[in-house]
Amino acid sequence: MVYQRRIQLSTQHPTSTVYVLGTELSLDVCGSAPKDAVAFHVQGTPGVKLYVVHETKSVKLPSSVARWPLAAGTEVLLVMDALSKDVGDEKVRISYFAEAGGVPVGRAMLFLTCVEVSLDADTSRSGTVSRTLLDKAEWLWGPNGHGPILLVNCDRDDPKAETPDNRDTVIRSYADLQDMSQMVLQTRGPRTIFSSYHLLLHVDFGDADKVGVFYGGNSITLEEYKHVLGGSKLSYAVKPSRHQEESIFYVEALAFPDIGFSGLVAFHVTLLESAEKGLLETPIFTDTVVFRVAPWIMTPSTAAPLEVFICSVDGNEDFVAAVGALAEKAKCSLTVCPLLENRQDRWIQDEVEFGYVQAPHKTFPVVFDSPRDGGLKDFPFKSILGPDFGYVARQAPHGTSSLDSFGNLEVSPPVTVRGKEYPLGRILIGSSFPRFGGRRMANAVKAFLYSQKVQAPVELYSDWLRVGHVDEFLSFVPAPDRKGFRLLLASPNACYQLLKEKQEEGFGEAAMFEGLEGMPKLTINEILANEDLRKYNNYAQRCISWNRDKLKRALGLAEPDILDIPQLFGSAADTDADAGAEAFFPDMVNMLVLGKHLGIPKPFGPLVGGQCCLEERVRALLEPLGLTCTFIDDFFSYHINAGEVHCGTNVRRKPFAFKWWHMVP
Amino acid sequence: MVYQRRIQLSTQHPTSTVYVLGTELSLDVCGSAPKDAVAFHVQGTPGVKLYVVHETKSVKLPSSVARWPLAAGTEVLLVMDALSKDVGDEKVRISYFAEAGGVPVGRAMLFLTCVEVSLDADTSRSGTVSRTLLDKAEWLWGPNGHGPILLVNCDRDDPKAETPDNRDTVIRSYADLQDMSQMVLQTRGPRTIFSSYHLLLHVDFGDADKVGVFYGGNSITLEEYKHVLGGSKLSYAVKPSRHQEESIFYVEALAFPDIGFSGLVAFHVTLLESAEKGLLETPIFTDTVVFRVAPWIMTPSTAAPLEVFICSVDGNEDFVAAVGALAEKAKCSLTVCPLLENRQDRWIQDEVEFGYVQAPHKTFPVVFDSPRDGGLKDFPFKSILGPDFGYVARQAPHGTSSLDSFGNLEVSPPVTVRGKEYPLGRILIGSSFPRFGGRRMANAVKAFLYSQKVQAPVELYSDWLRVGHVDEFLSFVPAPDRKGFRLLLASPNACYQLLKEKQEEGFGEAAMFEGLEGMPKLTINEILANEDLRKYNNYAQRCISWNRDKLKRALGLAEPDILDIPQLFGSAADTDADAGAEAFFPDMVNMLVLGKHLGIPKPFGPLVGGQCCLEERVRALLEPLGLTCTFIDDFFSYHINAGEVHCGTNVRRKPFAFKWWHMVP
Repeated sequence: MVYQRRIQLSTQHPTSTVYVLGTELSLDVCGSAPKDAVAFHVQGTPGVKLYVVHETKSVKLPSSVARWPLAAGTEVLLVMDALSKDVGDEKVRISYFAEAGGVPVGRAMLFLTCVEVSLDADTSRSGTVSRTLLDKAEWLWGPNGHGPILLVNCDRDDPKAETPDNRDTVIRSYADLQDMSQMVLQTRGPRTIFSSYHLLLHVDFGDADKVGVFYGGNSITLEEYKHVLGGSKLSYAVKPSRHQEESIFYVEALAFPDIGFSGLVAFHVTLLESAEKGLLETPIFTDTVVFRVAPWIMTPSTAAPLEVFICSVDGNEDFVAAVGALAEKAKCSLTVCPLLENRQDRWIQDEVEFGYVQAPHKTFPVVFDSPRDGGLKDFPFKSILGPDFGYVARQAPHGTSSLDSFGNLEVSPPVTVRGKEYPLGRILIGSSFPRFGGRRMANAVKAFLYSQKVQAPVELYSDWLRVGHVDEFLSFVPAPDRKGFRLLLASPNACYQLLKEKQEEGFGEAAMFEGLEGMPKLTINEILANEDLRKYNNYAQRCISWNRDKLKRALGLAEPDILDIPQLFGSAADTDADAGAEAFFPDMVNMLVLGKHLGIPKPFGPLVGGQCCLEERVRALLEPLGLTCTFIDDFFSYHINAGEVHCGTNVRRKPFAFKWWHMVP
Repeated sequence: MVYQRRIQLSTQHPTSTVYVLGTELSLDVCGSAPKDAVAFHVQGTPGVKLYVVHETKSVKLPSSVARWPLAAGTEVLLVMDALSKDVGDEKVRISYFAEAGGVPVGRAMLFLTCVEVSLDADTSRSGTVSRTLLDKAEWLWGPNGHGPILLVNCDRDDPKAETPDNRDTVIRSYADLQDMSQMVLQTRGPRTIFSSYHLLLHVDFGDADKVGVFYGGNSITLEEYKHVLGGSKLSYAVKPSRHQEESIFYVEALAFPDIGFSGLVAFHVTLLESAEKGLLETPIFTDTVVFRVAPWIMTPSTAAPLEVFICSVDGNEDFVAAVGALAEKAKCSLTVCPLLENRQDRWIQDEVEFGYVQAPHKTFPVVFDSPRDGGLKDFPFKSILGPDFGYVARQAPHGTSSLDSFGNLEVSPPVTVRGKEYPLGRILIGSSFPRFGGRRMANAVKAFLYSQKVQAPVELYSDWLRVGHVDEFLSFVPAPDRKGFRLLLASPNACYQLLKEKQEEGFGEAAMFEGLEGMPKLTINEILANEDLRKYNNYAQRCISWNRDKLKRALGLAEPDILDIPQLFGSAADTDADAGAEAFFPDMVNMLVLGKHLGIPKPFGPLVGGQCCLEERVRALLEPLGLTCTFIDDFFSYHINAGEVHCGTNVRRKPFAFKWWHMVP
């Protein structure tokens, strides 16, 4: 809708005002009419286009009608389309006539100065600021959407800085500026007009703590950049310079979307008119640009790996070497967190989740630091946060549970569910089934994940496990066919079926845990004869089956999209079922996926013909998909500490090629 | 999407399970196949419908194909459509065959009990609970939408209770129950099945503090009703009785939509299966119903009045009598707040706003208590809150300003703006223009108003006024034509035009404030000659014009929808423009609208021919709309205290005929 402004006129003295390009003035012809006037005539200089609105019809002037009756509701509309060269260089004159006609009984003069005032940003999402006819006050999702994007400036471009860049109000480097989005204020027209008509850049009170705006004037030296808006600064008086028509502002977001913050932030520029000296200025025109803060986006295990993280702790040298070799095969780098920084905490999967933020002009990774605080507590902030590597954290003020560890936070590959597209996949988190005392993820973390909107979370049931992480029973691997992936699920049923098959083939005396020092061997016959174990695994299977059914619905999967990986679970405490389940042998779905290279916990299953029958079965399931299975011995270094390969590693992956703003959440 | 559950079978022992009406079972025929089986045959008792899914085709059984190859991905789907009479009275048998054929090499038996488990509410919004095929887990706006509604039980049905009903966990009366929404759990099938399959009613952790659920079992005596869900109670084990198939729960909302609470609340019933004694139960089926909490809705001044509120304070007897006479004409009741309860605070408009909540089964008024706390502080809670009269309040922890008074909170009549309908109008609040130190409404109040969603707020600029309320410059009156109303705006320009007209007619010596003891008379000539006053009113006019332009855009108004009511403003302090504007003579738009009867502050304008020319002009503007103008003298009782008729009254009005859930916000 056109920005229309009503103008009061007077026959006593001429009126002066500015006209802002793209708006419309409505002249109150009736309001200034002398008492005995019944008709009027209006004419303007060539730069002024006039329309008379009379009895709901609009007639462009000059028309054949010279005089218009002064009926109630009669309006004169005015538009201009060229900038003024001088103040007041265009004019409108309204002449009023009494019934008898002839000589005017009064005249109202309006002097106009046409200026341009426009606040612009990268509304078309091209990577640069451009003028647009799109509605800048509206931010729309989708491939045909529009609206500019802000990044949370949560990296630390200056390695000497103590905090991430979104916690200071200074510009330390050009790299810092490059994380910000440009916002350009265009001011054209006779320069002297802006000494009496002031410009105010402002942000709504409720948004002010979510953004920072920097301005360097005409300067390009960093020292000149000042923090002009955000926090307690709600408005900034812009002084257009004599020689520059564009004022470039740099905008950073300080916070991610969350409860009470949709992610939308509006900036306004308002033109102020001074009615009289000593009186306050009044607003006459406002232009608004709405930005959206880019969400934090997770990457699924099927995405290309860039960097593998692992901890070096006492006694895990072989494990580190094995993961290093796998990373080399997958051609991605390996980052080892040294003992000094991990303080014997090997669960790097649980401490952080790697994701990224993206705007048309910039993309960078962001590590999400979990509320879990083990020995790795300081590692993400101290060692991962850095130039173009952002950091975000959420706390759990009411205490954490094991479900707050990020082994309990995964994301599916892209899926389509009953026609609804999730081009960035769906976040999967484990919750308790709602019984008394059940554990659950901290509200602050859940709220953060839901608020990002682009990877709508699905809550699974993981509290039946002692550790309680979704990565204990599920994983995703790439596949050349179908939806591009398979969901792997731990399956006690598949394991019993396999063992029974081997028993029937005459290998009942083949034993698990061969070659593991101090571990009692266990034959297939013994396992199959253990009724308590069978009952417990029936229970575990039912818990997994509930998740399986839910995953099929939530991700739109069919049976052939799922592979059941043989696995047994046992009760963590023999006497108390409530202690939760844990893997009976190394949990194979808890794997490291590096492209086609899988690092799978070595299960130490029964040897049949010199081959581990569990490894053999898993190879038979996965190798036809073009995947390579490397079984990594994590038994004493991870498994007996209730974790496996996936828990002990973490991967930064390539962002999606798909741009998040092209989706409709 | 059909709720599908995967069932594991065994050739070792028969499997038993329940089938829930409306769901689908997927039998894992491959998972239980003996090692050498290559084909299977499946048959069921007459109550069981079977489908074989084979190479993506689905074939209903019995078909001409007797044996099916055991290819990967082959599924047997099962549905039933009649309740079981006895536990396990329907069966499925799967026979496995080796390549040679002939005799089965294994058989898997499945015993089935068909039950019904359904959680229902007033999904179709008819006023009663009904079964439905609509998606109960989804709540949709609009005339074709669906989904049940909860009321915030914020009235106090028991006059002896100390708190509103949403702050206790007891049922004190049937009236209390009637404010709640019914939720019915249907459980049909052989009753004995529910002794081994348990039912759990539960609510998500994040929603639990927003609702209360009561259950009385088979009893109809109030004492038997127990608080079973909500607060710290996340789940409730339902024991279906031997004789009743329906368990009726009563649900109340405790909180209105607000920051961090969308208003949607999900309830679930989950059927639990006991795998083995001593092990935890596992969920096998969940039915979900999503409610929305009804928003608090305001009524515009054009709505039919039901009850006028006024304060009796020292010296306002004549005013109370005048308003009482007007209320009588408008056939609505008058409630006088006595001195003891108002403690000389006459600004009843500022203390509260009357609105209502509505569900298909119930509607009642709700008073919104402003953070402003004058002498009237306790009146709303003590005297308005009561049976079927609800109460809601928001605090301003960082202190209040005059902009928090509810004279600064109005709502427009229904409007359509560029095709977007606002069938309940739009809320209008006054804000500061964003300059340093500007006052603004408390965030908690603003957030509450925005969160109700159905009357999208518009923020106007009212901080230029000393008191700073939107009702100082705008009002709505009913009209028989156009959009059904007129927007009245205070207009210094219209006033100057009128006075000049009268001067030209020879009445320059006519004086204002005639008959007001102690007030200096002021002639038209003197007013028109006062240049400071004119300049100040130019400024006031510009402030109002900014709001006028904004209102035209936000409400989709045209010039003929607006009437300019002559009014002058003066600076509250002669030396400091920043002190803000106040009405120079009684502010006529600050009127009481009771249907066609208007109670307008008597302006004491210049007498021309024995008639007040201001009254005459206002009559000329409003009487053609069928409105009756009664000018009420509020000069010494309200005007000189910086308020007028509207500020000193309040009106409870008839709810909209339009149901809020029929709109799409």
